[in-house]
Amino acid sequence: MTTNFYAPPATIRGQRVMLPEDEARHARTVLRVGQGDEIPVVDGEGGWYRIRVDQVGSDRLVGTVVQERSDVREPAVDVTVGIGILKKRSRFETFVEKAVELGVYRIVPLQTRRTERDTVRRERLRNIMVAAMKQCRRSWLPILSEPQSPTELARDVDGDVRLVCHGDADAVPVRQVVDRDAAIESAAVLVGPEGGFHEAEVDAALSSGFTRVSLGARRLRTETAGLAALNSIVLAARSA
Amino acid sequence: MTTNFYAPPATIRGQRVMLPEDEARHARTVLRVGQGDEIPVVDGEGGWYRIRVDQVGSDRLVGTVVQERSDVREPAVDVTVGIGILKKRSRFETFVEKAVELGVYRIVPLQTRRTERDTVRRERLRNIMVAAMKQCRRSWLPILSEPQSPTELARDVDGDVRLVCHGDADAVPVRQVVDRDAAIESAAVLVGPEGGFHEAEVDAALSSGFTRVSLGARRLRTETAGLAALNSIVLAARSA
Repeated sequence: MTTNFYAPPATIRGQRVMLPEDEARHARTVLRVGQGDEIPVVDGEGGWYRIRVDQVGSDRLVGTVVQERSDVREPAVDVTVGIGILKKRSRFETFVEKAVELGVYRIVPLQTRRTERDTVRRERLRNIMVAAMKQCRRSWLPILSEPQSPTELARDVDGDVRLVCHGDADAVPVRQVVDRDAAIESAAVLVGPEGGFHEAEVDAALSSGFTRVSLGARRLRTETAGLAALNSIVLAARSA
Repeated sequence: MTTNFYAPPATIRGQRVMLPEDEARHARTVLRVGQGDEIPVVDGEGGWYRIRVDQVGSDRLVGTVVQERSDVREPAVDVTVGIGILKKRSRFETFVEKAVELGVYRIVPLQTRRTERDTVRRERLRNIMVAAMKQCRRSWLPILSEPQSPTELARDVDGDVRLVCHGDADAVPVRQVVDRDAAIESAAVLVGPEGGFHEAEVDAALSSGFTRVSLGARRLRTETAGLAALNSIVLAARSA
């Protein structure tokens, strides 16, 4: 079996699991899952199950839990990434897919002073996130928050480390910050849109206690910066 | 000026620079560069120049070097990434663009036992690389090698650290390896295709002195794995 199946908590009652219709159809028609087979299922909230298949119908697959674990393949640190909404939707989608693979906990699309677009396609992004979660075999479906401003997010979000990516002479290399405290359990990072954050947005984040960090000498595209920051934080945590 | 211009070494003679036709056209029509303006130019081999524009024609821009530097925004470590050619070309292109941004030195498309496609579109990839080099403002155009097998590359490539990404119980977290020696000047990393490397390919790399590393608990797509490994190595070097 190459990917996990996704069954939200409401579809799991005691030891009995009924896959959602699209998952059931995929299992039967593409993967040829049959009665008696065992398949891996995640609930998107940290639950991982091995299921023995009892019944397969055209849009229906019912099974029984034979093994149960939690937080399978999840990182040791919960990382929230606030990231400028991009004009080119495909670039934002690339970020979302890869952020799920790299272990993001929550994605917050940011409406910034220099953002040229201020909406995202939630349903489409959610589908990308579900597919990536299944494919990389993690057990949590990351949260996709409503778009907000970086100043609101900076004020409201908690985190053992809180970083704003805005590389210039004053910025500390991200690695120095995350190395200092490898036992961090939560982190928040803000990444600007194509034109970067406005200085007022950076100042607001600094006032909320954020640290200004740099991701290296090159000017990264927004989606690349978001992935580089996330990867650095997740791999710095003790058990990645 | 938001990006650098690209003028290969052959177009620079002493203090005189003549931009290639497409760059000259872009400068004039899109960026409205005129006589007397100063623009940043890179030669793709580490040379960075500030040019004063002397003449602008329809497909022609001639200037004089007023400032010269070398290796601007280049990482301290030369990283060669050998990566399985992907069936879906857009995913390979995403890797190539972002690898340039993250500071890759050389990309080697790998023909592996499980590779479903064994060619790349060189011209198209080269155009992506030039655009990314200009956009992220680095001064080296990374090398795009001819496709080869991971076993050949493992045998031939040098590197202070040489890593094969093949996560399982035996693998060391990539961070532990690159942290051990932050003074590394060169590195090579091998990343498998969709189906992963065949064990024989991993064994051949280990025989050539490679270390097997893991990039975290999640199963990453090929292009994501290549970017995560590259980012970890570049940011571990003393001056990223």
